[in-house]
Amino acid sequence: MSEKMKVGIAGLGTVGATLAARLLSTPHSQLELTAVSARDRSRDRGFSTDGLDWHDDALRLAQADNVDIVVELIGGADGIAHDLVQAAINNGKHVVTANKALMATHGFSLAEQAEAKGVALAYEAAVAGGIPVIKVVREALKWNTITSIKGILNGTCNFILSEMKSKGAGFDETLKTAQDLGYAEADPGFDIDGVDAGQKLAILTALGFGLQPNFEVMSIQGITNVSDKDLAYAGHFNSVIRLVAICEKTRDGILQWVGPCLVPNDQALAHIEGVTNAVQIDGDMIDSIMLQGPGAGGAATASSVLSDLNDIACGNIQLVFAQPAASLGELSGNVGLSACPWYLRFSLVDQTGSMAKVTSILAEHSVSIEEVVQKGPDNGDSVRPVIFITHTVGSDNISRALDSLKASDVISDEVSIMPVLTSSPS
Amino acid sequence: MSEKMKVGIAGLGTVGATLAARLLSTPHSQLELTAVSARDRSRDRGFSTDGLDWHDDALRLAQADNVDIVVELIGGADGIAHDLVQAAINNGKHVVTANKALMATHGFSLAEQAEAKGVALAYEAAVAGGIPVIKVVREALKWNTITSIKGILNGTCNFILSEMKSKGAGFDETLKTAQDLGYAEADPGFDIDGVDAGQKLAILTALGFGLQPNFEVMSIQGITNVSDKDLAYAGHFNSVIRLVAICEKTRDGILQWVGPCLVPNDQALAHIEGVTNAVQIDGDMIDSIMLQGPGAGGAATASSVLSDLNDIACGNIQLVFAQPAASLGELSGNVGLSACPWYLRFSLVDQTGSMAKVTSILAEHSVSIEEVVQKGPDNGDSVRPVIFITHTVGSDNISRALDSLKASDVISDEVSIMPVLTSSPS
Repeated sequence: MSEKMKVGIAGLGTVGATLAARLLSTPHSQLELTAVSARDRSRDRGFSTDGLDWHDDALRLAQADNVDIVVELIGGADGIAHDLVQAAINNGKHVVTANKALMATHGFSLAEQAEAKGVALAYEAAVAGGIPVIKVVREALKWNTITSIKGILNGTCNFILSEMKSKGAGFDETLKTAQDLGYAEADPGFDIDGVDAGQKLAILTALGFGLQPNFEVMSIQGITNVSDKDLAYAGHFNSVIRLVAICEKTRDGILQWVGPCLVPNDQALAHIEGVTNAVQIDGDMIDSIMLQGPGAGGAATASSVLSDLNDIACGNIQLVFAQPAASLGELSGNVGLSACPWYLRFSLVDQTGSMAKVTSILAEHSVSIEEVVQKGPDNGDSVRPVIFITHTVGSDNISRALDSLKASDVISDEVSIMPVLTSSPS
Repeated sequence: MSEKMKVGIAGLGTVGATLAARLLSTPHSQLELTAVSARDRSRDRGFSTDGLDWHDDALRLAQADNVDIVVELIGGADGIAHDLVQAAINNGKHVVTANKALMATHGFSLAEQAEAKGVALAYEAAVAGGIPVIKVVREALKWNTITSIKGILNGTCNFILSEMKSKGAGFDETLKTAQDLGYAEADPGFDIDGVDAGQKLAILTALGFGLQPNFEVMSIQGITNVSDKDLAYAGHFNSVIRLVAICEKTRDGILQWVGPCLVPNDQALAHIEGVTNAVQIDGDMIDSIMLQGPGAGGAATASSVLSDLNDIACGNIQLVFAQPAASLGELSGNVGLSACPWYLRFSLVDQTGSMAKVTSILAEHSVSIEEVVQKGPDNGDSVRPVIFITHTVGSDNISRALDSLKASDVISDEVSIMPVLTSSPS
């Protein structure tokens, strides 16, 4: 293609401004920035808007004759972002978006629309920031049958868990540190409750398994209940704790799961520290590959937007979820985690025979013990922490064993339970 | 494109046979296997050649009317592989190759020819097996200015170094283990001398820095001189030893370098164990991303060939080294490593003042010490091992300091020296 593709950007935050500046400073590329839209025209964003069309109303980009590709960087599953993307597609314009909420929620209907109009709907920047995971899964691994995708997809959570471990600090103070460093929002719920990771996972599941994205059918647990005790005990088992997003083919169907996991140090995901993101993709031909890099940041995310723009300019326009939208399956419902080992911590009442009772309750539910660490009572408490790593066992067994334990008189209230990540799912 | 692309495979070893079987078992794809060539027709390769054209002479694939894409899996920089690729291109056929020696040696002239003919010359499988590093650098990171690419590109070497460390074993016995496991060839020179990693590096350098591949202008050192002592001492400095291939922009030009490095555990490359490969790419927008996965193996390598075939079938045909061949620069000559810390081990003559003399010689050459470990004499030897980690210093200074030390009477013959990998090159 020798004629330039004309680009309009909606949303001039860090990513949008970085993107605009890069396009403007690269005049001899196949891409030409022609129009922008943001709320406040007066703000200095580090580049000159001279010669660009300025639209106060982002929707105007969808109608503009001098825009071939609309870049949507507004965010949010609904409202103006959704309206803009729909309008752009309907007007035959290509769309590039960094909007995970939009793709996780409306990805399927938007894919249908884009396909009907023969335009691109590209979203590399929506998952794992600067890591080119969408391109890798959709193009490079096209001939693999994907068996699982496991990711550390939220930098805020990974920073907090890394920092709590290395500093021995509590959750609240570490969250405060993350906020001071700009790694966590003033309202951190979206990140620490696992919603952000879940939206990214819904997109990866759709792409990896040929399904309509479905953010509703998912088990999500955040990191607010991970205690500094668990992080310290994880070390006893040569492991770390990470918020892991998992989609995988199980015997019961496709699983979508987000939650804290014990990750043994012999697994690649255990070495992902701080705000770094990582995605491990298992497939029948490649066995396992892992990509790691910056999961956020203006320049890294802009790099992914530019990857999408470059593809469109080169005529490399892929089906949104790698196969025709009409052929995408539906997730039928929540599927439990595959059988795996579990990390189990609770406080044992300090009386003769309590440990025997616990192990017998576990055995009744076919939960057998791989490793146990028992500590003396803290500060003259009448309870003693006990930490088990079980052998591989189904989540139903673990749930029932836990119910029985809670109903007994030998453990106190505080219970912590996490799956242990294994390299090959059963 | 609705019409199928017809594929001919030259070379039916593990990769070729896996590829053929996969194409034959996927009849509804955009690719159709029509012809194959190998030396021995009678061998059972796990798939039926019924209905395929068999050519005893691989060059016939370049003339066959029922072949649109020639897959070259014969290997070797020259001879039949080179002839076949040239002939295929000249006949207007696309070429996919897994041949690193060919691309490192003749990549530039072949790129010129492919460009002139408007055909693809794709080589994802030539570097790092199943890891899609070529696609990532060429497409996903297209808008980044690459500053360095560092890779663990040879699984045999990485297996040997990992195994020597974990077992405390010597080089020769570990090489034997690698051979028994099929991780090393009967004639291992190509791998353990660094040539294989160097050829892959030449390709990455060309792609990352817009240069003609040049395997000659490169500093290469293998792993045969890495002793079990060095592997053990590395642990004292929270580091491991890895054979690292580096290309990077230095103040003196583009560096191409392969050799053993001390890799601190806080770097992602330190956690690459066994036969796994990894490539870390630093760019101005993404900062740093790393890909890891299987560097060899029939299925993983076939996955990369299929990625290339899929691109061609989709019409995604890229310039061979990401820019027009005529615009590729030339490497002018060998460039020294950027200033970095160094690992230095030698045996000190056990006499009063010898350590003072050593440190004073180092100081004369502006080599200052970050950390030192000194051991008692082994088994009543008259020499004592001393290991230094220096502050960041240029390779010229280190060379001169080493010459002075060797000329002095305070150290014995055995000297081991390695750069320490740093996350941001100066």
